[in-house]
Amino acid sequence: MAIELYWGSGSPFAWRAMLTLEVKGLKYESKLLEFAKGEHKTPAYLQLNPRGKVPTLKDGDFVLYESAAIMAYLDRKYPDPPLFGKTAEEAGLIWRAICECESYFVSAGDKVVRPIFFGKGLDQVDEIQQAARTIREELKRLDERLADSSWLVGKEISAADISVFPLVQLLLRAASKEAAQPFNLGLIPLAQTYPNIARWVKQIEALPNYQRTYPPHWRQ
Amino acid sequence: MAIELYWGSGSPFAWRAMLTLEVKGLKYESKLLEFAKGEHKTPAYLQLNPRGKVPTLKDGDFVLYESAAIMAYLDRKYPDPPLFGKTAEEAGLIWRAICECESYFVSAGDKVVRPIFFGKGLDQVDEIQQAARTIREELKRLDERLADSSWLVGKEISAADISVFPLVQLLLRAASKEAAQPFNLGLIPLAQTYPNIARWVKQIEALPNYQRTYPPHWRQ
Repeated sequence: MAIELYWGSGSPFAWRAMLTLEVKGLKYESKLLEFAKGEHKTPAYLQLNPRGKVPTLKDGDFVLYESAAIMAYLDRKYPDPPLFGKTAEEAGLIWRAICECESYFVSAGDKVVRPIFFGKGLDQVDEIQQAARTIREELKRLDERLADSSWLVGKEISAADISVFPLVQLLLRAASKEAAQPFNLGLIPLAQTYPNIARWVKQIEALPNYQRTYPPHWRQ
Repeated sequence: MAIELYWGSGSPFAWRAMLTLEVKGLKYESKLLEFAKGEHKTPAYLQLNPRGKVPTLKDGDFVLYESAAIMAYLDRKYPDPPLFGKTAEEAGLIWRAICECESYFVSAGDKVVRPIFFGKGLDQVDEIQQAARTIREELKRLDERLADSSWLVGKEISAADISVFPLVQLLLRAASKEAAQPFNLGLIPLAQTYPNIARWVKQIEALPNYQRTYPPHWRQ
């Protein structure tokens, strides 16, 4: 039975699902939804995902949303290569990294990325800089963790790397925009600010089929 | 090797870890930290958990924090009874419920619970009521899911139930306070507003050893 992935260009959460499928070498049908056309809010899509968000995975008759849940499902259904560790301890640390990303990184990232992409935020510089401080603290933790390890947990790529990476890429893209300059985010150039993260990003970008997961509208 | 659980009375996240240990029938040493004394911020505790939060689990030499990660670790290390489903599909749906709880319920809950417990919020009634609307939407989804099922996913208690339950209890406790009255939260009496959730709460309260997990300062 065919796997279908409903996704949107630039969604870090959809990117997680796509990277998981590629790293596992699973074939899937890409269903790219155009946010600008409201394709994630059509009655047909809301039948699959009542929250009207991406990603949504369809595997035969089984439908699932929430990116971390999709990663967990795919790993249990298609265990090779394992993305949630080989031991209970590794699994725990991988989930810890995912939870920390969701609890601390995602919301702070949103507070910075959204105003920059929408060309706003000049009336909330303090809030944005406060969020940027949180982001820098989280990046520092990640950079330290990567100082003596190629991957966030264990000796292979895991769901921890796949969860965090798209959010780092989104932040870097926002930080490189002219609209980011008033906020002095202190995030780039990454090779200077967080050299271990910079190396880790390059390593993920070098994965086979990485280019297939790259948000198409970012190329334009 | 002994399991130790560092927790704080009333923390819904610590409650998740404790319920998991009890449902699995695991012996553990309770390390109750008193927030009022700053016991979660001592140098010794920060060595275990640099974020200074609860819960933290110590299993022999292995230390882990973030409640969902602790649940995942315990389930993989001590698989009986399984709390993340018997199939990939169940596992996916259980993680979906946990992710939805973290993404939508926790932050809205925090916006309501915190001002009530601290006797504040009269200057932010609109925000609190907006958060309460989100909470009611999430509770409605849960209530519908429980309409024809005893548990949130599958035929047995799972990590989905254990994740959501402490947050529901915390909300109910907040909603029952006199300080909640100005906000017209519309959450209680639960048996009228969300009858299926009310039944599910009773069912969890009837679990063996449930009383051992009940926040001690709530009894006072």
